[in-house]
Amino acid sequence: MSRAATNLQIDSARLWGTIHDTAQFGATPKGGVRRLTLSAEDKQVRDWFRKACEEAGLEVHVDALGSMFGLRKGRDMSKPPIGVGSHLDTQPTGGKYDGILGTLAALEMVRTLNDAGIETELPICICNWTNEEGSRFAPAMMASAAYVGDFTTDDILSRKDAEGVTVAQALDSIGYRGDAPVGRQKFTSFVELHIEQGPILEAENKTIGVVDSGQGVLWYDGKITGFESHAGSTPMPLRRDALATLSEIVLAMESIAKKHGPKAVGTIGEAVIAAPSRNVIPGEIAFTVDCRSADAAIMDALDRDLRAAIAEIAARRKVDVKLDLVWRKAPTHFDPRLVDAVENAATQLGYSHRRITSGAGHDACNLNTVMPAAMVFVPCKDGISHNELEDATQADCAAGANVLMHTVLALAGVAS
Amino acid sequence: MSRAATNLQIDSARLWGTIHDTAQFGATPKGGVRRLTLSAEDKQVRDWFRKACEEAGLEVHVDALGSMFGLRKGRDMSKPPIGVGSHLDTQPTGGKYDGILGTLAALEMVRTLNDAGIETELPICICNWTNEEGSRFAPAMMASAAYVGDFTTDDILSRKDAEGVTVAQALDSIGYRGDAPVGRQKFTSFVELHIEQGPILEAENKTIGVVDSGQGVLWYDGKITGFESHAGSTPMPLRRDALATLSEIVLAMESIAKKHGPKAVGTIGEAVIAAPSRNVIPGEIAFTVDCRSADAAIMDALDRDLRAAIAEIAARRKVDVKLDLVWRKAPTHFDPRLVDAVENAATQLGYSHRRITSGAGHDACNLNTVMPAAMVFVPCKDGISHNELEDATQADCAAGANVLMHTVLALAGVAS
Ligand SMILES: NC(=O)NCCC(=O)O
Ligand SMILES: NC(=O)NCCC(=O)O
Repeated sequence: MSRAATNLQIDSARLWGTIHDTAQFGATPKGGVRRLTLSAEDKQVRDWFRKACEEAGLEVHVDALGSMFGLRKGRDMSKPPIGVGSHLDTQPTGGKYDGILGTLAALEMVRTLNDAGIETELPICICNWTNEEGSRFAPAMMASAAYVGDFTTDDILSRKDAEGVTVAQALDSIGYRGDAPVGRQKFTSFVELHIEQGPILEAENKTIGVVDSGQGVLWYDGKITGFESHAGSTPMPLRRDALATLSEIVLAMESIAKKHGPKAVGTIGEAVIAAPSRNVIPGEIAFTVDCRSADAAIMDALDRDLRAAIAEIAARRKVDVKLDLVWRKAPTHFDPRLVDAVENAATQLGYSHRRITSGAGHDACNLNTVMPAAMVFVPCKDGISHNELEDATQADCAAGANVLMHTVLALAGVAS
Repeated sequence: MSRAATNLQIDSARLWGTIHDTAQFGATPKGGVRRLTLSAEDKQVRDWFRKACEEAGLEVHVDALGSMFGLRKGRDMSKPPIGVGSHLDTQPTGGKYDGILGTLAALEMVRTLNDAGIETELPICICNWTNEEGSRFAPAMMASAAYVGDFTTDDILSRKDAEGVTVAQALDSIGYRGDAPVGRQKFTSFVELHIEQGPILEAENKTIGVVDSGQGVLWYDGKITGFESHAGSTPMPLRRDALATLSEIVLAMESIAKKHGPKAVGTIGEAVIAAPSRNVIPGEIAFTVDCRSADAAIMDALDRDLRAAIAEIAARRKVDVKLDLVWRKAPTHFDPRLVDAVENAATQLGYSHRRITSGAGHDACNLNTVMPAAMVFVPCKDGISHNELEDATQADCAAGANVLMHTVLALAGVAS
């Protein structure tokens, strides 16, 4: 690598500026971002991103699920590009960094290479994957899951949000149903920068997380059918209370996850009582379950223990509980050669680092099933994410972007 | 009492017909009724009721909270009438009898007296009280609570539903904000017929419940503030999960109520997660609590135990829980002379009967604080109420209406 390339640093202030400028698209009063996938706010940031890519000389195209790809040519166009990026959608009460840092750092890398006049051997393709968050439409990492063939494009296009709007309708309504078939854009390998979304790097005072693995995920849709009756006149022993049933399930999930110590988590994130009323015993509740582990055997145990607990609770309370697995993502083991490349970049740049497991799911986890992939983490304040208070420092964001760029340069090769 | 009056029976088929004809106003596909107070459906049944009262020769007026009064003159107009009636509003997924039976039986009684040409000494006033259910606006038995002075009319007019619509706006929108000041219509005493809404009469095969008491009610609004964070990357011990907190509160309420055996009940009927998402640990939940006992000392214990349990749970889980008492109704002890009158009527008509405590609240419970009041119960199927499957037999409805009529005749006196 040339001396110029070896010492190359991204423009920290410019990266910080784009993060904070684009946070206007869906800004919330509490300083967070609400930019649900394929919403009007998502269209705003997509339009901005397309223009920024074009201004950086990239050739932009959009696939049938709305994922955006910006190609920077390399000297050797016979090989697929190195993919770099993340997502620009957020949770309903999300932060300014989750996904966004990784996508805008990819753009910053291109701008830096342009400024330095650096050509790479392989082309580079920066990506904005549709619906990584999974909050409006399930599953999470939706577009990359279709990309790797876990779901067909038609299946995904027909998925509905809580209002009954399909992915297809949502794409059309913001004009982001592209022409390119999902999967046509090939990659040689893929690298993603992200905030850790957990407390480990901060606690250990490390700047870079070299992500070598990721938790597997189980997502369920649940429905409890008890019996509505009068809150005043129905004796306690005769009740078939759907909310008391849910309460036991929530606490069972919690203790099942805790049983596996730090190796598992379990959460009920959504619960909606049908026709709620103060003086009516809840009769019907829809809920979701999210549980995870990096260990496939523990994932099986979580599923088994949760189902057994629910069966016992339902029988004892004489209620009906349905639990449908709607998504299963196996644990991720990132490509060892790429993990080493990330570690080398961090070492060469002199950043403190450690290997780490991702608690969250990422598009890179999906992509790793069909190509070599890896990830770079940077700390976030108090490990907080999926919260409007999500925060990270300018220095850590820049460090992560530098590690990302040097990993990509190592993978793509410098031509000039 | 004349022989004609002694043997008088209401028209069972006509009563049954009006119950089932008016069930069209807000009919649900499952055979129930959704007729939230002051809704378009409530206007429909009110318009029907006004016309039916006028056709029965009653002088109808409406008070400032929309309660409807139909006066049948007596020979002695120097005394206030005997009040009879109940309510025509329902729960979101309510039945065809709760409140409706009592209101339409009062109308049926007037029709029967008219047909038999019977004049009473005292006048009779049949009533449809606004918002007995308390589902759209709190508290329940709202209009009768204002009638007895527990709340001012202005306070009640400013109460809001979940959409922010005030009682005043809702009254105006259906044209039922009347001219009469709340409380102007005086009564000598008040009698209300209702389905039991509990399982006792059916289990003991009794036709009539002679209601001598009613449970007191505590209603609370609660709010849990935990901390939203990522469902995948937040370790279990670091969570401040609002839904796990609620779950412990729900189960604590259940066991506190059970501790008092059949003498108490406790229910969480509403719980709403703010900004729910599958992969976000719930950070904020609003909920309601309804707990009851016929024993004032037990009500105090319920309040104390619930607050203590919540304080312990909140401290342990490092979350904030607010619990505001929004309504407290003391236990009811109905007027002994009127309770005897109900019992005498049941005995004379040859119906099996027993004394009973009302599990539910009723307008008669409020009215009993300022005038002698009593209630008649009839069985309902499996004790089910606040459910679209609520059911009762024609024979039991007719028996209840006959006991109601003969109680009223005993109180009003027969003139001719
Ligand atoms: N990184 C991230 O927050 N992804 C959302 C999908 C998940 O729940 O893990
Ligand atoms: N009777 C009846 O269901 N009343 C509603 C108020 C209550 O008791 O919750």
